[in-house]
Amino acid sequence: MLSLGEGQNGICIVSENEGKIRELNATLRGYGIKLRKCAAKKIEIQSDSIEEIAKFAALQAYSEIKAPLIVDDSALLIEALNGFPGPYSSYVYERLGLRGIIKLMEDIKNRRACFVTALAYIDAHGMEVFEGRVCGEITSRPRGSGGFGYDPIFMPEGSAKTFAEMDIVEKNSYSHRGKAARSFAEWFSRR
Amino acid sequence: MLSLGEGQNGICIVSENEGKIRELNATLRGYGIKLRKCAAKKIEIQSDSIEEIAKFAALQAYSEIKAPLIVDDSALLIEALNGFPGPYSSYVYERLGLRGIIKLMEDIKNRRACFVTALAYIDAHGMEVFEGRVCGEITSRPRGSGGFGYDPIFMPEGSAKTFAEMDIVEKNSYSHRGKAARSFAEWFSRR
Repeated sequence: MLSLGEGQNGICIVSENEGKIRELNATLRGYGIKLRKCAAKKIEIQSDSIEEIAKFAALQAYSEIKAPLIVDDSALLIEALNGFPGPYSSYVYERLGLRGIIKLMEDIKNRRACFVTALAYIDAHGMEVFEGRVCGEITSRPRGSGGFGYDPIFMPEGSAKTFAEMDIVEKNSYSHRGKAARSFAEWFSRR
Repeated sequence: MLSLGEGQNGICIVSENEGKIRELNATLRGYGIKLRKCAAKKIEIQSDSIEEIAKFAALQAYSEIKAPLIVDDSALLIEALNGFPGPYSSYVYERLGLRGIIKLMEDIKNRRACFVTALAYIDAHGMEVFEGRVCGEITSRPRGSGGFGYDPIFMPEGSAKTFAEMDIVEKNSYSHRGKAARSFAEWFSRR
């Protein structure tokens, strides 16, 4: 396994979001990739580009812990709200909650929204970024209790369920994070 | 004037916000302090503390241009929205506009909000941060055409006008930015 460059203990994940870590693990496990939570300062810049946010955070964390690591930055972009909450999705979720989004979307016909993830992987050889995206719509009320964050009000195209009504395997089959994690894992396994 | 450490051409201000620069100039001029706009990357981190945001940005910009400079980071904190939009005030303004805030505040009785500014000054001797704060309320509709950003919906305590209904001198007499700029100017002039 050392040839995979991940050392004995797996790849570091720099995140405090347990839901995120659970979902990444559920995908990566299938490729024999193990994650371990590492404590590192996660410096997130303000940027419209989640790719830039993930890259900056990965570089900073790598300069601190000097071990192969992953940073996952994700955003919900609601078309009728000009991409809000975008890169500040978790801040907005903490402050306004689902109710705030539902209120902002009252009387708005265009319900289209996309979730995007930028997953940055960095080790001594350099950095690679993998993106995943899923579009769908914002529901008029929360449904389901799975997942985390905006999952109860996001229903991906091709499904009649919100993310919060799916189990982790079904969610990953549709989700931005699942797609980014699979791209990374395929690349990583090929190296 | 060289003893003031600002060189021949004034202190750099790292900002693309012309309204902000105009207001700072209106205050600092009275102290004989001249600002000039300098091009430097303004790296803004995601943080609940605008002091941290201003300090990080000032340090980064200083490492690039190596000239005495000011960074002004400001936020609107609405009590009933748990401090939203906070450090992401300008992003939220661009995406949701005044209408978004008015919609979020519909049917909410507690209209209290505060504006805060952290003004970071840095030169070869080190960094100092000056804070200014003003509280007041969010109006139910926009009034006035002066100022910028959230000014049409913010009415400071002790006034029956919104910031957008005031001229720049009157706004500065109340405002977060005016207070921070005066603290800085008094400190700077005393050095």
